[in-house]
Amino acid sequence: MKLLECVPNISEGRDPEKIAAISSEIINHPKVRLLNVSSDRDHHRSVFTFVGEPEAVKEAALSFALKAIDLIDMRDHRGEHPRLGAVDVVPFVPIHGVQMEEAIRIARSFGKALGERGIPVFFYEEAALHPDRRELPVIRKGEYEGLPEKLKDPHWKPDEGPAVFLPKSGATIVGARFPLVAYNVNLISQDLNLAKEIAKKVRYKDGGFPHVRAMGVELKEKGMVQVSMNLTNYQVTNIPKVYDFIEEEAQKRGVQVAGSEVVGLIPLGVLEGIVQHYLKYPEFSIRQVIEQRILEFE
Amino acid sequence: MKLLECVPNISEGRDPEKIAAISSEIINHPKVRLLNVSSDRDHHRSVFTFVGEPEAVKEAALSFALKAIDLIDMRDHRGEHPRLGAVDVVPFVPIHGVQMEEAIRIARSFGKALGERGIPVFFYEEAALHPDRRELPVIRKGEYEGLPEKLKDPHWKPDEGPAVFLPKSGATIVGARFPLVAYNVNLISQDLNLAKEIAKKVRYKDGGFPHVRAMGVELKEKGMVQVSMNLTNYQVTNIPKVYDFIEEEAQKRGVQVAGSEVVGLIPLGVLEGIVQHYLKYPEFSIRQVIEQRILEFE
Repeated sequence: MKLLECVPNISEGRDPEKIAAISSEIINHPKVRLLNVSSDRDHHRSVFTFVGEPEAVKEAALSFALKAIDLIDMRDHRGEHPRLGAVDVVPFVPIHGVQMEEAIRIARSFGKALGERGIPVFFYEEAALHPDRRELPVIRKGEYEGLPEKLKDPHWKPDEGPAVFLPKSGATIVGARFPLVAYNVNLISQDLNLAKEIAKKVRYKDGGFPHVRAMGVELKEKGMVQVSMNLTNYQVTNIPKVYDFIEEEAQKRGVQVAGSEVVGLIPLGVLEGIVQHYLKYPEFSIRQVIEQRILEFE
Repeated sequence: MKLLECVPNISEGRDPEKIAAISSEIINHPKVRLLNVSSDRDHHRSVFTFVGEPEAVKEAALSFALKAIDLIDMRDHRGEHPRLGAVDVVPFVPIHGVQMEEAIRIARSFGKALGERGIPVFFYEEAALHPDRRELPVIRKGEYEGLPEKLKDPHWKPDEGPAVFLPKSGATIVGARFPLVAYNVNLISQDLNLAKEIAKKVRYKDGGFPHVRAMGVELKEKGMVQVSMNLTNYQVTNIPKVYDFIEEEAQKRGVQVAGSEVVGLIPLGVLEGIVQHYLKYPEFSIRQVIEQRILEFE
């Protein structure tokens, strides 16, 4: 069985009926599975996670997006999170038995279908067609409110669909990316600067590990501080690398690790590196896991 | 999806045609998956591993056993491994979404069906009906050759089937057990006594961890020694417990761990304890793994 994941973000986080109606496009598709819905009132935004065979995921993503475009009106939308449109971002993520090339192909084909229905579409990350469209924040700069001006600029001609501002729907950003692992390490300290200092050492932007974003965070209720990370390619930089590094840096400063956590769902492949490292077992493969074998048969 | 595993051991390890014919009873069953076949010429014995929904596994195990009983003649059988019959041992193992109670029920029902076809059957481990039949070596004592005498003893009346010695087929031992994890830790030392000493400290028989069998082994080609273990209930004693203990004991003696390895296939659940321990993440659950979620839907 091949598994492609889709994690669409839509600009509706408050109306449970609308969210349910949009969800139902995924729930009612017989060949995909909805794993998670996370809605945020302050951001006025919902994030859906669903998986299935690549073609089925593309189909379900399209009916989902058309329903969201039908029900959401951006002219009323206010929220804290930056956004460009009703269906704001649609990333496709290779999880299991799928190469990045296939995720890119599905993203481009989904974006083309959406463009043919009149929505301006920009491709980002691995699916980007222009080097300056790889990064989400660059594409989203100016947000929905700046879109009328942006679409007049020939430099910002959409990759699919017309260069036309749609007041109701805005534009959609479609892409392919590696699975993102949200991983946090908690430190027995109340010194936020210490967490910020270690976050700076670990993140790529400041000379740390590739594919790592990190920040220092205060956990007031726990009376601790945290190094909060996104590992954007766990095959290049995995959890043991950052865990051991952070533990060492903390200990240098006389601080112990309280614990760590993964936020949300992860592919089985993330566990491979953990077993390899801590058991000194470099040959370990998830193909030794019975459940993995079963999925390969399906 | 529920997954029950069956690991039948048969007394044929030399004739590839016979082994293929017996395998085909599993391969041709549409609802079970053959994961592994391991044949040993010296032991004149083959071990099969297959999985599926509980009822399908029972069905496939029965047609497999009848084919093996048809093709194997114990009167010709010589091998190093102790055995009682053509279909020697048939353990059922709960892997995924199956409780031990269900594995026991399937084992008893399989044993009953085999008994009705005239084969003497003894139930062992979790499926045992007598406290002195829990352990395989106790039931197998005297082997095939001692079976005519054993079956005359009222104490050894079979749990299913007649108390009749079948020269061609012998008897079959049927049971239910937890998944067995074969796990080895290699030490950078050539001192076999050191490995034996640590093995003794780790195994239950000599006061170590529950559900651990262990021995010291020499790895001549690698120029190392090894603590070779069977973890017979990984939910009680898991890999991190024995790995860390062995590492500490070795270091006390000035010896380092070279590496470790799992032999054969393991259920995903085995990885849970590894992640919990090494990432200081006691809440980690395999339900955070996407592939696990997918199997729950199937």
